[in-house]
Amino acid sequence: MDRVRCGVLGARGIIGQRFVEMLSGHPWFELGALFSSGEGVGRPYSEAVRWMIGPDVPGAASDIVMTEGAFSGVRRSGVDMVFSALPSEAAASIERKLSDSGIHVISNSSFHRMDPDVPLVIPEVNGGHLSMLLDREEGILATNPNCTTTGLVMALAPIADLLEGPVHVSSYQAISGAGYPGVPSLEALGTVLPYISGEEEKLIEEPVKILGRLDDGMIVGSSIRIVPNCVRVGVRDGHLISFSASLKDRVDIEEVKRRMGSFTGLEGLPSAPKRPLVLRKENDRPRPDLDSFAGGPLGMSVSVGRVRVDEGMLRAFALVNNTIRGGAGNAVLIAEQCLKEGIIR
Amino acid sequence: MDRVRCGVLGARGIIGQRFVEMLSGHPWFELGALFSSGEGVGRPYSEAVRWMIGPDVPGAASDIVMTEGAFSGVRRSGVDMVFSALPSEAAASIERKLSDSGIHVISNSSFHRMDPDVPLVIPEVNGGHLSMLLDREEGILATNPNCTTTGLVMALAPIADLLEGPVHVSSYQAISGAGYPGVPSLEALGTVLPYISGEEEKLIEEPVKILGRLDDGMIVGSSIRIVPNCVRVGVRDGHLISFSASLKDRVDIEEVKRRMGSFTGLEGLPSAPKRPLVLRKENDRPRPDLDSFAGGPLGMSVSVGRVRVDEGMLRAFALVNNTIRGGAGNAVLIAEQCLKEGIIR
Amino acid sequence: MDRVRCGVLGARGIIGQRFVEMLSGHPWFELGALFSSGEGVGRPYSEAVRWMIGPDVPGAASDIVMTEGAFSGVRRSGVDMVFSALPSEAAASIERKLSDSGIHVISNSSFHRMDPDVPLVIPEVNGGHLSMLLDREEGILATNPNCTTTGLVMALAPIADLLEGPVHVSSYQAISGAGYPGVPSLEALGTVLPYISGEEEKLIEEPVKILGRLDDGMIVGSSIRIVPNCVRVGVRDGHLISFSASLKDRVDIEEVKRRMGSFTGLEGLPSAPKRPLVLRKENDRPRPDLDSFAGGPLGMSVSVGRVRVDEGMLRAFALVNNTIRGGAGNAVLIAEQCLKEGIIR
Amino acid sequence: MDRVRCGVLGARGIIGQRFVEMLSGHPWFELGALFSSGEGVGRPYSEAVRWMIGPDVPGAASDIVMTEGAFSGVRRSGVDMVFSALPSEAAASIERKLSDSGIHVISNSSFHRMDPDVPLVIPEVNGGHLSMLLDREEGILATNPNCTTTGLVMALAPIADLLEGPVHVSSYQAISGAGYPGVPSLEALGTVLPYISGEEEKLIEEPVKILGRLDDGMIVGSSIRIVPNCVRVGVRDGHLISFSASLKDRVDIEEVKRRMGSFTGLEGLPSAPKRPLVLRKENDRPRPDLDSFAGGPLGMSVSVGRVRVDEGMLRAFALVNNTIRGGAGNAVLIAEQCLKEGIIR
Repeated sequence: MDRVRCGVLGARGIIGQRFVEMLSGHPWFELGALFSSGEGVGRPYSEAVRWMIGPDVPGAASDIVMTEGAFSGVRRSGVDMVFSALPSEAAASIERKLSDSGIHVISNSSFHRMDPDVPLVIPEVNGGHLSMLLDREEGILATNPNCTTTGLVMALAPIADLLEGPVHVSSYQAISGAGYPGVPSLEALGTVLPYISGEEEKLIEEPVKILGRLDDGMIVGSSIRIVPNCVRVGVRDGHLISFSASLKDRVDIEEVKRRMGSFTGLEGLPSAPKRPLVLRKENDRPRPDLDSFAGGPLGMSVSVGRVRVDEGMLRAFALVNNTIRGGAGNAVLIAEQCLKEGIIR
Repeated sequence: MDRVRCGVLGARGIIGQRFVEMLSGHPWFELGALFSSGEGVGRPYSEAVRWMIGPDVPGAASDIVMTEGAFSGVRRSGVDMVFSALPSEAAASIERKLSDSGIHVISNSSFHRMDPDVPLVIPEVNGGHLSMLLDREEGILATNPNCTTTGLVMALAPIADLLEGPVHVSSYQAISGAGYPGVPSLEALGTVLPYISGEEEKLIEEPVKILGRLDDGMIVGSSIRIVPNCVRVGVRDGHLISFSASLKDRVDIEEVKRRMGSFTGLEGLPSAPKRPLVLRKENDRPRPDLDSFAGGPLGMSVSVGRVRVDEGMLRAFALVNNTIRGGAGNAVLIAEQCLKEGIIR
Repeated sequence: MDRVRCGVLGARGIIGQRFVEMLSGHPWFELGALFSSGEGVGRPYSEAVRWMIGPDVPGAASDIVMTEGAFSGVRRSGVDMVFSALPSEAAASIERKLSDSGIHVISNSSFHRMDPDVPLVIPEVNGGHLSMLLDREEGILATNPNCTTTGLVMALAPIADLLEGPVHVSSYQAISGAGYPGVPSLEALGTVLPYISGEEEKLIEEPVKILGRLDDGMIVGSSIRIVPNCVRVGVRDGHLISFSASLKDRVDIEEVKRRMGSFTGLEGLPSAPKRPLVLRKENDRPRPDLDSFAGGPLGMSVSVGRVRVDEGMLRAFALVNNTIRGGAGNAVLIAEQCLKEGIIR
Repeated sequence: MDRVRCGVLGARGIIGQRFVEMLSGHPWFELGALFSSGEGVGRPYSEAVRWMIGPDVPGAASDIVMTEGAFSGVRRSGVDMVFSALPSEAAASIERKLSDSGIHVISNSSFHRMDPDVPLVIPEVNGGHLSMLLDREEGILATNPNCTTTGLVMALAPIADLLEGPVHVSSYQAISGAGYPGVPSLEALGTVLPYISGEEEKLIEEPVKILGRLDDGMIVGSSIRIVPNCVRVGVRDGHLISFSASLKDRVDIEEVKRRMGSFTGLEGLPSAPKRPLVLRKENDRPRPDLDSFAGGPLGMSVSVGRVRVDEGMLRAFALVNNTIRGGAGNAVLIAEQCLKEGIIR
């Protein structure tokens, strides 16, 4: 199989960097172009980017000269697919145009997530939703969820039918989620910030769609209700999430744990971890410094822990690597699934 | 009025230090003795303590030679009252013995908090519970709640009768709450720790007692049900708390805010802040770095913010200075109230 | 004495906020105007500012409607003096123009610090340099040094004549020194950044001028040579500085400590701390969390510690509150000294 | 070649954990035993250890039942070599005894580092010193330097003969260097601590030995003089070091950079990085979050940057991963070199 030639929109941001990292040396995809706006254009990637996720830009990407990330620039670049790490407004003006023109778009951007004809996918949870793209003649447009949503939904997916009533959620979100420059250090160092613009709205909306079922090409939303409180904390990588919800009558904790522990991975996809959900047994896990890079590839597994039930009330924690499984990694996994299932040819 | 001669048990710990700070120069209390176990005994306080809350030990306390904190040592010291910052096991062996012997004990320790004959008090919330001590012939024994409990209950007190069903709580707790040496830096720096030993149990039990009513000398517990997830975060001072709960039918958000905003302080007590509850209007407050020392004296007010209602579900945040209002400061306020109301004579 | 009516240029920044804090309720100065550019103009200060140094804007400043900080705006405001917290380029265009027009300018900005006719002053060290402004007919223009310079020079001043050869300096600088938004959290949280733009140059130049002597109205520079390495660390307030230098023959450590310990404060100035230099005897001090707010007013004293000599080589640490003594506080002290000595009338 | 059966003394500590990580799956060494004192004995390693360097103990080590780390226990275990991560006092009582008994000891402990018959080695710098062990009949005893020393000496080694006079050094040391529980979070979070017990002494002594020359089986110390100021900062991994020193006449900066940039690695050793010294060209590197895991194996390269010369004075920064190159990794590299050169057979 020839590798699919792909590009990254918004390649200089933190999520863009994770795309570059995951696509460098990927067995199915070939990094053909890196797109930028403004001053990045025309410079080698390693000079144009402020690389923040390790000592050096991967060799494969280092010398790629950045291309103007406008519609015409992407068209001319000859890529068949783009991974988008664009901010919402920029995504609005180009993503659909690109997919209509025949270039596949897998986007981390929030703009099209709730569009009825765009699947919002965590492959292990609702990869089936991608089938709504099967008959599409042009390029596809698929999205991955918000970082916190991804962590929460992966933890809830195996047990959603055991719950009743609202799921109360509080988050402990890492600063890398806000990109660069992102959160000023005066608002992160030695403090926590009980507000993240737009986050709670996404955490309410997106799970309803992801956990919904596909009915005649349309998503019928789940009845799940999330009650979120989102907070930024002084952590670099890894969103921790606490949640609590009522269990239906007679559901016991062992059933909850059994389901979480046996949540199985997808086979045959390079970025699919064997265990999408790692159930920790220690009484003080998961925690960001230890569990953010769980899984293989690193950061693709969500960890859950402190699962406990008291008078019918379930309480637990989940942890997701916000830029990998909660961002670029999940998008790459969607692309892999599309390729395997012939949605992208 | 002569100042009451008092001592501090466990004076070298962080809560002990806050006691020393608040009692140095207090108009009603005179620091007569500082108690320690082990190597502190016989040394001037400024040498025996590892002072952690500012550059220098207050002058008034600096030269006090530390006394053995055993029963006989406290008796011999000639104090009329002690503030206790002892760990639970140490408190178990001495607090009741001291009060029975005629020395008043106001304790931050958790050991006796749930004893039926010991009031558990936040003066502005349930100061009336102290009246159960009125006829006592010996010394009194009164306790202040757990730090997180105090912040949560102060935020809930004015609106408790507007809520129905469980109150879901997640905490973002400061490291000073674990004392010194306390939390290893490898478990606090750049990470959060989703477990604090014993904390969730206290958060479940204590509000029931504090919000209960005194009936014929006995506390009848409130029906409030807390569903807590407690987490340590990389913050020095100030426990942030998120909470969500259903409002009763037809309660609107303005009523919630009005009650929180008009919660009034106690009059005539030196440590009582004018506004025990500060209602923040900004969309990203309260936050520990800015709000932990709200109030006068500093740190005696709890701040609440992001109060919002969505389909009958209330969500909000509260912040309490865990070593002052959530610890030493609340204990001192209890002592002041006891003195004013003649419970301590 | 009537209070001098003064204003603050750049009042919304962190140093600007410290000016507002120190001038609210100041016995000699009256806060008459707060200047801003752009969107702040026309709004009450408490709404226009993102207040970062405590829960609330001081009452005295809260309702002041912000004024356009251009030359004409300042002139019209009727203030007799301005404290400037402007960035360098903004300072370039207005500070001298204002002083020429008769408005006194005390500036924290770096732009004019090295101008031959502008004194660069730490009152306890080289307050005498202010006399070069005595015969000036128009408004004066005086500057306070860079934050790190101030800490270093205050520690070196009493012993400068005991040293020979270069003084090797490494800094551990707080994030508040970069203002708001300033340092991105991804570059401060859990890491240190070995570069601060322009900082080392200032640390080389400024001590030469401050420690110089006034000769016939001109400063003759000191021969001191600083060899600096400047680093940003994850600390909110307080720049720590390590330094090492050769002592002249036969100088012993006791002489060094004696001089540091007996460095005396200025009398009769409201913002002058009794001990400008606090000599710590502990083996692990000064440290930012404990010593940054040393002095009265808080943050006006520099702390020194770990003073040791080994084979003729002195090593020690100094700590300065970078926004108070290293910024707004030192500027206010300069203004007080000018007023007391009749340089400002 | 059969793999050498080895054990780890002090396997539960942070350096011990790095040993376990590096030896799991090592091509030349086989993890045969893990030693502990006290409560660890008799339990599987994964249960006995509080694993702090990733989500899970490597599979190869997970089920090893820990053995009593006393002399007889080590003897009985049948290992041919031990890597020691013991605290100094524990090392004193067992390391020499073990090597005398025929078990090779490569130690990270400081106790024997300055013994005349014990080489103190960074293989790329003074691997030749190991030849003093060639004729030894019993087991060998070799040590790796203090973590900060290693970083500093690797940066200085290629240029040491270009310098004259003392080398002034300030450190920015990570908390992992103090082990677990190690530094209390109240002394690391949002602050820096200008004191690390014993560290400056080691930084003075050790480079003299490492940079010395072997003369007739004895080390003749180098004349290098280090003037250190050691500070703990709020960083998890990676010690940053600033240094400044006079260059000899007519040495220019290009020569310094050329030598640093061309410092070559050892060939044929599994843990030897290709470039032991990575010369960064950016103006704000190295920094701990990005450069601590430079090299292959990760963390085996020291990064240097901001190399600059001003009036004959060199200034630069170096960064070393304190638990890998500055600890376990350097020890493993020593063992590899000993094996390759027949010092261990």
